[in-house]
Amino acid sequence: MNPFYLLELAGITVFAISGALAALERREHHHDFFSVFFTGFITAIGGGTLRDITLGNYPVSWVRDQNVLWAIFVGFMLTIGIPRLLLKLRKEVFLFDTVGIGIYTILGTKISLAQNVNPFAAIILGMVSAIFGGVIRDTLMNQVPFIFRKEIYATACLLGAFVYISLRAWGISEGMNAFVSVSLVVLVRIAAVKFKLSLPKIYLPKV
Amino acid sequence: MNPFYLLELAGITVFAISGALAALERREHHHDFFSVFFTGFITAIGGGTLRDITLGNYPVSWVRDQNVLWAIFVGFMLTIGIPRLLLKLRKEVFLFDTVGIGIYTILGTKISLAQNVNPFAAIILGMVSAIFGGVIRDTLMNQVPFIFRKEIYATACLLGAFVYISLRAWGISEGMNAFVSVSLVVLVRIAAVKFKLSLPKIYLPKV
Amino acid sequence: MNPFYLLELAGITVFAISGALAALERREHHHDFFSVFFTGFITAIGGGTLRDITLGNYPVSWVRDQNVLWAIFVGFMLTIGIPRLLLKLRKEVFLFDTVGIGIYTILGTKISLAQNVNPFAAIILGMVSAIFGGVIRDTLMNQVPFIFRKEIYATACLLGAFVYISLRAWGISEGMNAFVSVSLVVLVRIAAVKFKLSLPKIYLPKV
Repeated sequence: MNPFYLLELAGITVFAISGALAALERREHHHDFFSVFFTGFITAIGGGTLRDITLGNYPVSWVRDQNVLWAIFVGFMLTIGIPRLLLKLRKEVFLFDTVGIGIYTILGTKISLAQNVNPFAAIILGMVSAIFGGVIRDTLMNQVPFIFRKEIYATACLLGAFVYISLRAWGISEGMNAFVSVSLVVLVRIAAVKFKLSLPKIYLPKV
Repeated sequence: MNPFYLLELAGITVFAISGALAALERREHHHDFFSVFFTGFITAIGGGTLRDITLGNYPVSWVRDQNVLWAIFVGFMLTIGIPRLLLKLRKEVFLFDTVGIGIYTILGTKISLAQNVNPFAAIILGMVSAIFGGVIRDTLMNQVPFIFRKEIYATACLLGAFVYISLRAWGISEGMNAFVSVSLVVLVRIAAVKFKLSLPKIYLPKV
Repeated sequence: MNPFYLLELAGITVFAISGALAALERREHHHDFFSVFFTGFITAIGGGTLRDITLGNYPVSWVRDQNVLWAIFVGFMLTIGIPRLLLKLRKEVFLFDTVGIGIYTILGTKISLAQNVNPFAAIILGMVSAIFGGVIRDTLMNQVPFIFRKEIYATACLLGAFVYISLRAWGISEGMNAFVSVSLVVLVRIAAVKFKLSLPKIYLPKV
């Protein structure tokens, strides 16, 4: 087992936790075991699945590799077992979630490039890998997705994917490149939350 | 024509009817012919289509076999022709719908296994086949999907798919296995509605 | 470069503009650069992408051909650069949008037929190509999709696709057929808006 694979599984567990916690926090619905599991599941696999079916990259990871499903199950068990602790550790969970987003972005970009995709499409699909699980989750929960509401989020992914592809073109080694690009996504996201950075708003002119 | 195929087409018609009736019952919108047809269509084919594109299992059934579309059309014509009768027969329509869900679950599980899917993914995809048409319909109607609101529903599908795969591993004949597993889904669902059973709710601890 | 390809790119730009303007017009959200870009992107590529993944028709156009992404980018730049002018030209934008819908419908129908799809599925997929970008956009914006609210819209696409397939069966030349079918979609849509035509509403009988 290579360390990157273990890291990926850890990322899936964290995504499943953040999805399941998001379901629990919507107090207006009374979530049962299935809802919490399924929300975690969708959040964890939604982005990568959408990327793969857009690329025609079969078989999709969780369909091929049941470890992905076990990683989600671990996240689910943790969420219903120690929700109080997870909420206290919110800051640490946020950090893990952000690292997960960084890894998914670069992994998604890399997978897309391997399918002979044009580089701009690879950047978009890298971002989609990282955030669309959350977008589908929010849409099913009947909410405007967080990417339309929050501080800089998807943009951090687009930026990280852009840098990854650029450094790759410059011949930087894969390991160093992944480290730099993932770190960039994480740092931009942390800075955005810490300093409440968001992109300029656009207002319609009154006509 | 084998009887299973006819049964499947009948299931599609019933799904289309329940989708089209659901559109009509949302009185806050004024549904026209297209909306009612399209809602029935999405409900009938959504789950199976999502399963097939997740598996890369092409061509998707309604794209290959126009009988599926005719089955939906029959459901649409019945809905706009005799809505009063269908509403009076609500109990019977519910029963048919439940049988349809059972059949779709086991059929979806079987199709997934045939694509060399891991068994846990096959269980999830069996459930997706049966209920995601309704999930997409509810989402388009701007409602929280029924699977997050109702009594035991998706869980009955997961249970039926689990039993189907288990009995298969025990070498039970296909016909007997399908009969037992479909019946299980139907009975669990009927019991859930009759006795208002739902899974335990999970509440967030106040922190 | 053939003229049809340029026409298609122009259609994508117009779709991106109408999507981005739709985001801007929802004043209840404060849209930033990313939201406006992404809404235009989804509107422009959503329908064609859904058609291609339903058909298993890989690679999807914007993944293969980066000109599609540039066409969207041009639409985005125009929207944030001259929104006032675009809103003044609303009537002309509507006209372009309608021509775009006509072209997408016939193009989508043609692509579907080339994949050995049954003709009824080709009609539905032609309509999906033209309108599902907008449906996904509205759903993400947490609104009931316009196809369930507006005057005759999707029905114009179904009609155009039906006529296209019929004329094709009669051996009419491709160019003439495309011209007639696209014009039909455009004229029906314009007439529907001008005379506020909608399909008959269906009301549930009180039981």
